[in-house]
Amino acid sequence: MFSTDCVIFGFEGGELKVLLIERNEEPFKDWYALPGYIVEQDESLDGAAERILYELTGLRDLPIRQFHTFGEVNRHPQGRVITVGYFALIRINGQKNLQPVTNFARRAFWHPVNDLPKLAFDHTEIFKRAFKKIRTKMNYEPIAFELLPEKFTLTQLQSLYEAVLSKKLDKRNFRKKMLSYGYLKELNEKQKGVSYRAASLYKFDRRKYLKIFHSEITS
Amino acid sequence: MFSTDCVIFGFEGGELKVLLIERNEEPFKDWYALPGYIVEQDESLDGAAERILYELTGLRDLPIRQFHTFGEVNRHPQGRVITVGYFALIRINGQKNLQPVTNFARRAFWHPVNDLPKLAFDHTEIFKRAFKKIRTKMNYEPIAFELLPEKFTLTQLQSLYEAVLSKKLDKRNFRKKMLSYGYLKELNEKQKGVSYRAASLYKFDRRKYLKIFHSEITS
Repeated sequence: MFSTDCVIFGFEGGELKVLLIERNEEPFKDWYALPGYIVEQDESLDGAAERILYELTGLRDLPIRQFHTFGEVNRHPQGRVITVGYFALIRINGQKNLQPVTNFARRAFWHPVNDLPKLAFDHTEIFKRAFKKIRTKMNYEPIAFELLPEKFTLTQLQSLYEAVLSKKLDKRNFRKKMLSYGYLKELNEKQKGVSYRAASLYKFDRRKYLKIFHSEITS
Repeated sequence: MFSTDCVIFGFEGGELKVLLIERNEEPFKDWYALPGYIVEQDESLDGAAERILYELTGLRDLPIRQFHTFGEVNRHPQGRVITVGYFALIRINGQKNLQPVTNFARRAFWHPVNDLPKLAFDHTEIFKRAFKKIRTKMNYEPIAFELLPEKFTLTQLQSLYEAVLSKKLDKRNFRKKMLSYGYLKELNEKQKGVSYRAASLYKFDRRKYLKIFHSEITS
């Protein structure tokens, strides 16, 4: 048997969060877990991951991607089950209406990654591996921008990097580096709802990014 | 059921090659295929991938890593089998003694990637995905050096890049870029067996690379 498990990251209030469910079924009844379940015989892995995520959380059409398959012999107490891990980075804003459509999950919710409870099965390990993946990816892919609103301040960008890397960054160095890449576009717009020293808003320029990125060695 | 399939890349005589077997069993008897087989119930995925690779090719202790799991419903003619893909980049030199230890593979051999025959199952797709992976990786990880001898000329390095990227690169630009990264160390040694204008030999300086790479944003 095989299953899929999703590690969905979101960013809200300066905190990096992960999407969890509360299980309503044995094994690990009442435990917190990643949204995951058994794949049916007649569905593809990608299709199963989407279906299961939807059934357990109410969210669909997320840009999920495979990152690793977990196949230790004793990872599941009820027999041999390997599980294919998927991850996504999304904007929590507008994805708050979490509503499982099956009884298998009692509820779905966002939980800060910094304070994660013990999870069912080997889900803590699966989460850690996904977290490590996005940390590494952040060094060479513009994945941070998938978590931010379309328009953001440099302070928001920095606090996201700090949340993912779990450490404080020097403000001046961070800004200098970020702007030096050339793919942040300063907008002719300021932050709203701030009366004093409103910060400039920026946008990620994907076209420029691709131009820079793809000219590395391959050109 | 699930299986593992390995895409092992090597570089020899200016050509990028992949390790194939000739199958001796149905389905796809007599076909060329990636080295792969069914995982036993009592072994981990990683353990299975290593065992199967050894049994079908005689090679062991290769630095194989998972890259993708393939789970289309009809990918296997005898029932539902998902397969976990592993890849590695190795130095062919010294890995020429290919000797299957099971009858399942009639022989194992290196085949140029540019001229790949039709492969069993969805192995062509699995190969393509691995190939794409190493192309992309080459832009941000020093994987090229896993394929080259420890000491190499810039011409060798360029022909490897050309083989992986499937295109000609401008010699001057390529050298300038490569040397500008700062992780190639010129040795006080020349290419051997060349009487006229022997080229300098270089080494990849992993420590320097890590220093550069890890200081990107995270510092």
